[in-house]
Amino acid sequence: MNEALNAYLAEKKEWFDDQLAKLFDHASITPKLKNSMLYSIKAGGKRIRPILLFATLHSFGRDEKLGLKTALGLEMIHTYSLIHDDLPAMDNDTLRRGQPTNHVVYGDGTAVLAGDGLLTAAFQMVADDQRLDAAVRVALIGMLAKAAGPEGMVGGQEDDLEAEGKLLHLEELMSIHKRKTGALIRFPVEAAAIIAEATELQTEALIRYSEHLGLAFQIGDDILDVVGDEEALGKTIGSDLANKKNTYVSLLRVDGAKEKLAQEVKQALANLKELGFEDGLLGDLARYLEKRTH
Amino acid sequence: MNEALNAYLAEKKEWFDDQLAKLFDHASITPKLKNSMLYSIKAGGKRIRPILLFATLHSFGRDEKLGLKTALGLEMIHTYSLIHDDLPAMDNDTLRRGQPTNHVVYGDGTAVLAGDGLLTAAFQMVADDQRLDAAVRVALIGMLAKAAGPEGMVGGQEDDLEAEGKLLHLEELMSIHKRKTGALIRFPVEAAAIIAEATELQTEALIRYSEHLGLAFQIGDDILDVVGDEEALGKTIGSDLANKKNTYVSLLRVDGAKEKLAQEVKQALANLKELGFEDGLLGDLARYLEKRTH
Repeated sequence: MNEALNAYLAEKKEWFDDQLAKLFDHASITPKLKNSMLYSIKAGGKRIRPILLFATLHSFGRDEKLGLKTALGLEMIHTYSLIHDDLPAMDNDTLRRGQPTNHVVYGDGTAVLAGDGLLTAAFQMVADDQRLDAAVRVALIGMLAKAAGPEGMVGGQEDDLEAEGKLLHLEELMSIHKRKTGALIRFPVEAAAIIAEATELQTEALIRYSEHLGLAFQIGDDILDVVGDEEALGKTIGSDLANKKNTYVSLLRVDGAKEKLAQEVKQALANLKELGFEDGLLGDLARYLEKRTH
Repeated sequence: MNEALNAYLAEKKEWFDDQLAKLFDHASITPKLKNSMLYSIKAGGKRIRPILLFATLHSFGRDEKLGLKTALGLEMIHTYSLIHDDLPAMDNDTLRRGQPTNHVVYGDGTAVLAGDGLLTAAFQMVADDQRLDAAVRVALIGMLAKAAGPEGMVGGQEDDLEAEGKLLHLEELMSIHKRKTGALIRFPVEAAAIIAEATELQTEALIRYSEHLGLAFQIGDDILDVVGDEEALGKTIGSDLANKKNTYVSLLRVDGAKEKLAQEVKQALANLKELGFEDGLLGDLARYLEKRTH
């Protein structure tokens, strides 16, 4: 990984993880529910979505603190989606990042409620953000709800449920991913554009960047599932194939998926070039996604 | 029921039900997910929470349309809570209002997602409400999220889960209900106070009214579960007792619960008197809650 990117990721991740750990310090919440929510919040992860928001603000020369509460809300929503996705009613996964999933530790009922609680509190977080104007906050909330809701992530999860056991075409797979994982990768970039008062043209280029980046991210995950290092990945290599999931690798084989990944990264970078951002953190992030599978 | 209240309820319920049916007309949502959300949204119910919002606006001489989107968001959140509450992971109920519950019709996975989708889209609804200032919208969203989230309804549901099979004291039961059902009965009254620009004193009296009303509503439900008309109620009489749930009737017997109900209604009305609202719709609603169990 590029040294500047590495230093930025490490610094921001530490700062952000500290803030996450304090999420419910001043809230009056029944202990088991609070523990259940914090268990999954603290379970780690690369915090790639918040980092994207911070890196975009940074590219515009704006203070990352302006995006802190939005990033916290976003990570709460990402975390809730993992808790619900792992439920027996959904993917029925018992391990995530090498740890028992939420419902395994706290029971199915509390896991449902922990997800509901994180999702709900995420909007409270953004609504109460005193650093931003009310007009900016309602724009962010409307956009976050659209990205995470039935037209976005939740809709993609439903399509994914319905696609189980069916063989998809590449276009169908891309359409599901655009909502299931892409919407919450596009959101932080677009949110930062709003906070930084980007022009319409800048915002459009950033959105295109984020859409290519989102696909690159998903394709990279699929490749790593087949060729990756089991320990570094925190899950069983080849589990997607064993579960007969539709992935870019199952449709394009490893070589075709790598080629598709390279194309998406190239297009992401082309959009950054329009903004003069291709040599900065956002460019480094895109280039990193390609390198991590080689 | 009082004639003026009856006419108001019928008129507003019809208007509101029409709006609910059109909720996702212009949204691009995968069909099964949309059908699942609309199935529970259209499953009826008295729409008591939206009616409270409208009746409070009416008491201040304000147009009910100002509260429409907030009321839609509120009813979406109430509906999501019923879908998740009925899941096998929670209460495992197969019937609600005489109809199969959401997961029975659409499967557990889609029911989880339908609940998630309604909850998320509720905040989009309020954020996008062009009739209200951005500052009012963020205040409403923050308040709605707090009422519905881990410090409110979701917290009460968790306490309720943990209380299963335990014998509670009256104070504990009241504390659970204050969050589990009370928070979403208080919200519409407080939301209307914000929209109507009520004074601080007026708002405080309205909140006290809504808290007594919320308890009266719950106590009434518990009494009806034992002495009610099965058909009118849409569920099996005595099901709470059969499920060994803690209720006001199990703690106070029917006579004691009726006495407690009368006290709550009396206190609700005393707070309305401070506002000069006791003879209007809000007073009628409180008086109706007492009468419906006699």
